[in-house]
Amino acid sequence: MSQLLRTNIEAVCPLSDEEFAHILSHFKSRKLKKHAFLVQEGEYLRQEYFVLKGCLKAYIADPETGNEFIYQFGAEDWWMTDREAFFKETKATINIDCLEDCEVLGITLEDRNKLGETTWKYEHFLQVKANLGYISLQKRLQLMIMGSAKDRYEHFIRQYPELFTQISKTHIASYLGVTRETLSRLYRR
Amino acid sequence: MSQLLRTNIEAVCPLSDEEFAHILSHFKSRKLKKHAFLVQEGEYLRQEYFVLKGCLKAYIADPETGNEFIYQFGAEDWWMTDREAFFKETKATINIDCLEDCEVLGITLEDRNKLGETTWKYEHFLQVKANLGYISLQKRLQLMIMGSAKDRYEHFIRQYPELFTQISKTHIASYLGVTRETLSRLYRR
Repeated sequence: MSQLLRTNIEAVCPLSDEEFAHILSHFKSRKLKKHAFLVQEGEYLRQEYFVLKGCLKAYIADPETGNEFIYQFGAEDWWMTDREAFFKETKATINIDCLEDCEVLGITLEDRNKLGETTWKYEHFLQVKANLGYISLQKRLQLMIMGSAKDRYEHFIRQYPELFTQISKTHIASYLGVTRETLSRLYRR
Repeated sequence: MSQLLRTNIEAVCPLSDEEFAHILSHFKSRKLKKHAFLVQEGEYLRQEYFVLKGCLKAYIADPETGNEFIYQFGAEDWWMTDREAFFKETKATINIDCLEDCEVLGITLEDRNKLGETTWKYEHFLQVKANLGYISLQKRLQLMIMGSAKDRYEHFIRQYPELFTQISKTHIASYLGVTRETLSRLYRR
């Protein structure tokens, strides 16, 4: 299943078998049951994760209303972490939990830095990935502020085509920032 | 004035004089008058820019209402570009214009890639910067969706302490997603 990680990295730079074995040796596999937390608000977060199997949601809970705002789903082949807590070695301010049984590959900040220092290709991969992540987040900010519910819905279907049937409508509504009723209306069109 | 660029890079990794001279040789200086466009929607964008002097705003204009949404200011020591258009070599979908006379250092994608390949430290710098940019954008998304106008205002003052007196209240209101009246109310407190 680690082939999935190789394909993900090779979308940025091709690797020899030795290079990939070296990279993979820095990751540890972890299995989680449905509803388990990968990252929990208020706890230190030591790793970033690549999703091998299953689907997770990253969300912020409003301390006053208890409302959840889902800002990212992580399906197979996606990277998940609380990036701020991971880089700054602070406590997580978001939660990430499993929408179904999951398997992830985790890497610590120390190993990530070491790997980047010894393997230029990995450093380059991280650089390109971070920029693509920024672009996708910028699109999301733009759609939340200036886009209509319909724009956001259509963008979601393009971005996560396989997730649409896999994830509950309640979670999709939370991601889009709309009510369940609005989502049903968009869905029927 | 290029010392500003050196300080910016050295916040991530220290450089020798030779290394910095090599990096700097890939940049070209450009001066712009107040109101000039650095990036214009619909045009190809060939460079990313480091701001040496002045202040710019990056914004999206709503094609239907004509309303502007400012999603970033760029003061001295900030990086500015339409990241998606720059990386994907497509037409810009945002505008960046000068709030006052400006001077920037520009680097093309080709030179950026070349520099990253020959100079690991620069590749590392780009990687770290992109991740910090992601974190700051994520904070912005979170505040736009779950934060109050007061939260966003206070975050703005912390993030851009020097800009607060430099930028017009109309522009700050557009950045915060509030009306001029709401901003004045916050400002008086």
